[in-house]
Amino acid sequence: MPTDAASRMLEDRLRAIEDRLAILNLIASHPPSADTGADYYTRAVYAEDGVFDRGPHAGGTGNAAIAAVVKTPEHHAAIASGLAHFCGLPYIELDGDRAAVTSYLQILTPDPNGAPVELSNHGTSKGFRIHRVAANRWELARTAAGWKIKRRTLRPLDGSEPARQILRQALEAYETTE
Amino acid sequence: MPTDAASRMLEDRLRAIEDRLAILNLIASHPPSADTGADYYTRAVYAEDGVFDRGPHAGGTGNAAIAAVVKTPEHHAAIASGLAHFCGLPYIELDGDRAAVTSYLQILTPDPNGAPVELSNHGTSKGFRIHRVAANRWELARTAAGWKIKRRTLRPLDGSEPARQILRQALEAYETTE
Amino acid sequence: MPTDAASRMLEDRLRAIEDRLAILNLIASHPPSADTGADYYTRAVYAEDGVFDRGPHAGGTGNAAIAAVVKTPEHHAAIASGLAHFCGLPYIELDGDRAAVTSYLQILTPDPNGAPVELSNHGTSKGFRIHRVAANRWELARTAAGWKIKRRTLRPLDGSEPARQILRQALEAYETTE
Repeated sequence: MPTDAASRMLEDRLRAIEDRLAILNLIASHPPSADTGADYYTRAVYAEDGVFDRGPHAGGTGNAAIAAVVKTPEHHAAIASGLAHFCGLPYIELDGDRAAVTSYLQILTPDPNGAPVELSNHGTSKGFRIHRVAANRWELARTAAGWKIKRRTLRPLDGSEPARQILRQALEAYETTE
Repeated sequence: MPTDAASRMLEDRLRAIEDRLAILNLIASHPPSADTGADYYTRAVYAEDGVFDRGPHAGGTGNAAIAAVVKTPEHHAAIASGLAHFCGLPYIELDGDRAAVTSYLQILTPDPNGAPVELSNHGTSKGFRIHRVAANRWELARTAAGWKIKRRTLRPLDGSEPARQILRQALEAYETTE
Repeated sequence: MPTDAASRMLEDRLRAIEDRLAILNLIASHPPSADTGADYYTRAVYAEDGVFDRGPHAGGTGNAAIAAVVKTPEHHAAIASGLAHFCGLPYIELDGDRAAVTSYLQILTPDPNGAPVELSNHGTSKGFRIHRVAANRWELARTAAGWKIKRRTLRPLDGSEPARQILRQALEAYETTE
């Protein structure tokens, strides 16, 4: 017969597992929203006081302001040209009601200057180009309505230091146990 | 002492967790099969009446027909040239014995026209090109032999509308709760 | 009231689930470590007698030797130029205290020869190139200090046979059940 302590421990383990799977899905839902301009999604997953920190580039504060960006004519022009956000496997640090996620992102578009190449039974294509590669840190908080984004920090992975700082944060736990 | 209801709830949670992990693995096993021409895999993971819907391009109906495609000389020519399917983080919607997965896919090959570039301690390479970027929707069903693909819908992410329709479907739940 | 057998079965299921999530995170932590030269991470996640098998290219035996590679001037030159390891969705085979993971990896850098392209509200960029695409097989073992890498085998996905051998291994279970 399980004791109360055993039940609580089981519940804690299950909750941590479900949290990780929910967080994977939250990160996975970002590209579809960005590539369709789904402002209703962005409003739903950012905390009301959430922040999208893009460094020197325009980001936003508050879920309404952040969501408004994907409705701009500029963003819709990018979508019409064939914008694709491509997300790699994210690294998750879970700590009770908080979590941090480190992820890599590619911004892809059809290559306007590409030479047509035929690939056997995959047709001819001018190819796609990687416009940007970025490191992301997502700081999340548990709420009554599920996990919400408190802060997303994005820095271009182009050899400059800020992106490496984001990546280093992911591994701090390893550094301190040496 | 757990009641029957508590046991059933625990079982439901465990099963949903195991389902999500099984589905992640199912999606992850697609690129290795496509890039080796493993028709035995394709037959095993599609339902007998499964459909691969590629829109205007040749797809297939029935697991045997879909599997036959990866044995064609055309597909093997693509494999010999260095074909790589590259899968991003998939978004999973689980609903009992059904599931839908939305995923991004890149089709990569060595770049026949690339200029050789040397990358410190990573050797010299003419690089790879992204031939195609595609949105996929996988509709899955639980069977006695595990999760099977009932329908895979693939549309090129090139600025045209059908791919965006696939991506939008993933976020319908968010749209309707506004 | 759960029997001892039921408790043990529950524990086995929970452990397998937690193992899979821990392994996903282990694979996800590789790119941040490679792109920051975090040798302390590499030492921590490889077994003491771990092997990094790169075929004809310099790999390493032992976690100290493998970790030393990311501290070399050559690797730091690559990092300074904007190195990004980009990891796709991995396929996991879990078997008790052992596991094998099959994953795809892209090595990305800013394109030194790229023509500047402006992408609406994403700024101007000369783009990134894919220097290499590789198939990886990670053989893992459970230890008192968590999952450790016993052997990582990396082969370039360029049309040559060794990479396909790695990918085929992932699907052996399907092949033998035909």
